[in-house]
Amino acid sequence: MTETVVSSATREIVIGFERPFCIIGERINPTGRKILAAEMVAGDFSRVEADARAQVEAGAHMLDVNAGIPLADEPALLARAVQLVQSLTDVPLSIDSSIVAALEAGLSVYKGKALVNSVTGEEERLEQVLPLVKKYGAAVVAISNDETGISEDPDVRFEVAKKIVQRAQDYGIPPGDVVVDPLVMPIGAINQAGVQVMRLVRRLRDELKVNTTCGASNVSFGLPNRDGINAAFLTMAISAGLTSAITNPLHAETVKACMGADVMMGHDPDCARWIRKYREAPPPGAEGPAARGRREGGMRRRG
Amino acid sequence: MTETVVSSATREIVIGFERPFCIIGERINPTGRKILAAEMVAGDFSRVEADARAQVEAGAHMLDVNAGIPLADEPALLARAVQLVQSLTDVPLSIDSSIVAALEAGLSVYKGKALVNSVTGEEERLEQVLPLVKKYGAAVVAISNDETGISEDPDVRFEVAKKIVQRAQDYGIPPGDVVVDPLVMPIGAINQAGVQVMRLVRRLRDELKVNTTCGASNVSFGLPNRDGINAAFLTMAISAGLTSAITNPLHAETVKACMGADVMMGHDPDCARWIRKYREAPPPGAEGPAARGRREGGMRRRG
Repeated sequence: MTETVVSSATREIVIGFERPFCIIGERINPTGRKILAAEMVAGDFSRVEADARAQVEAGAHMLDVNAGIPLADEPALLARAVQLVQSLTDVPLSIDSSIVAALEAGLSVYKGKALVNSVTGEEERLEQVLPLVKKYGAAVVAISNDETGISEDPDVRFEVAKKIVQRAQDYGIPPGDVVVDPLVMPIGAINQAGVQVMRLVRRLRDELKVNTTCGASNVSFGLPNRDGINAAFLTMAISAGLTSAITNPLHAETVKACMGADVMMGHDPDCARWIRKYREAPPPGAEGPAARGRREGGMRRRG
Repeated sequence: MTETVVSSATREIVIGFERPFCIIGERINPTGRKILAAEMVAGDFSRVEADARAQVEAGAHMLDVNAGIPLADEPALLARAVQLVQSLTDVPLSIDSSIVAALEAGLSVYKGKALVNSVTGEEERLEQVLPLVKKYGAAVVAISNDETGISEDPDVRFEVAKKIVQRAQDYGIPPGDVVVDPLVMPIGAINQAGVQVMRLVRRLRDELKVNTTCGASNVSFGLPNRDGINAAFLTMAISAGLTSAITNPLHAETVKACMGADVMMGHDPDCARWIRKYREAPPPGAEGPAARGRREGGMRRRG
C-alpha cells in the first residue's frame, strides 16, 4: 500500500490508496490571472495571502504555489510566495514551476517535505529535477509526457510514467515519493479521454502502485457547466484509484464531489467528515425544495 | 454486448453497456406519499399525471409506476395508472408491484414491451412472476435476494442474480431481458456498501453480462445533503457498469450526475446532449461566482 508523506513544519499529510482524497488548491498561480501577476511583480502578495486562507478554509489539504510570470524573477517570487504561504497556513505545499532554478529557490526556503511540481519524462528535466528532489528530500509530481510530447495512447503514457519512477529510483527517490500525473485531456475534444484516463489511473495504481494527481479542470475545457463535468470526472477517477488532484476548492461542487467519493470508497468512517460538513449549513444551492420532499420518503420499499 | 429493449406503443428505449444511462423516474409511487395515496384511492389521478409529465420533462427515459397502497384494490389502481401514464407520454414504463395480480393487471393493459419490477430469487416469486413476464413478452428486474433475505456478502447476491437469470432462461426469457438490481445498502450504516456494490455491478457486467438497475436513493439514507451522496454513487456506479437506475429526475443534481457520467464514459458523442442541456440556461445554483473566474482561465499551464 503506497503512501506519499508530505509535510509542513508542523503538519503531515499522507496521500494514499486507503486515505481520503487529497485536494491540492490550484489558485496561487498567476497563469491566466493578469491582476495577480501584476500585483506579484509589483511586490503585492495580498491576493496570494487571501487565496491561501480561502482555499484552506474551503477544504484544501495542500496548496500548489506557482509564480510563473514571463520576464519576472520567478525564483525570487516563488521563494517569497512559499515563505509567505507557510507563515499563514500549516498545510504542505506543492512547489510549482517549469524553471529549475525557481524550484530550487522554493525548496531552499521550504520548511518540511514539499511536493515538487513537476518533472516530465524528458531526459533534460529528469537530470535537472530529480537530483533537486533527492537533495531536499521532497516528493515529486511525474508528468507522463516526454520529448515526443503527450501521447494520445494511454499505454504510452503509462510507459513514460514507469520510466520516470525507475529513474527516480536511480536517484534514490522511492516510488512512494513519485506522484504520477496521467494527463487529462479535454473530453469535449476527445470522446474517449475519460475512459482512457480511468484505465490509465487504474494501471498506475495496480501495476506501478503509485499515487496519482492531475489538473482536474482540464477535462471540462470548452464545455458549459464545467463544475458538473469536473465533478463527474473526479468521482470516477477516485473510483479508479486517483489519490489527489490539483483543483479549485473554492468550487463547492468540486469539494462535494471529492468528499462524496470518499464516502462511497469507504474512506470516511461513519461518514463523519461528510456529516460534519453538510449537517449544519448546506452551501447555497446544494439542496433545492425537491430534496426536502425526498427526505420525508426515506428508503423506498422495493416490490 | 447486452441490450435490453423496452418500448411503449410508439417509442423504444435500449438499455445497454454502450448506451446513455437510463433514468427511470421513481415518483409515481404512493409509498411514503400519503396525499398521493389518498388521492389515488379516491380516484383522483391528477398528481400521477403531473408527476408523469414533470419527470419526462426533467429527463426521465422511462417511468416506474407503482400503486402499492395497503388495503386498496392495487390491481385496478395499477392498471388505471399505467393506462393514464401511457396516454400522456410515450416513454416505456416499469410496472412496479409486489402483488402478482397487480403486475398482471398492469401488463394486460400495457401497450409495448414493459419492464416488470420485479422478481426476487425466492422460489414462489420466480414461479409466479417469470411465466407472466414470458406471457407478455416483457423484460424483468431481478432483485438479488432470496428466502434467506438480503445477504451482506456481494458474492452471495451475485449467485442469487445468476440463479434468477438461469431460471428466466428456463422460462424462455433471454438474459438480455433480465435487468439485475444488485441492492444498494445505506452507506451511513455500512461503510463498505459503496465498494461492495461497485464490485458487484462490475461482476454482473463482466461475468453475467446483464444490464443493471437499482433504487439509487437508498445509498444516502439517513445522511445530510443526500443529493451529493446520490450523485457520487451514481457516477461511480455508472463507471463500474450500472446501466439504469430508478431515481428522481426532478433532482437536477441527479440528472446532472448521470449526464456527466455519460460524457465521461464516451456515451455522449461530441458532448451534444450535455451542451444542449447546459448551454442555454444553467439550473439555479449550478454555477457560483467562482466558476466564472475559472472559465476565464481556461486550460492551465502545467510546469
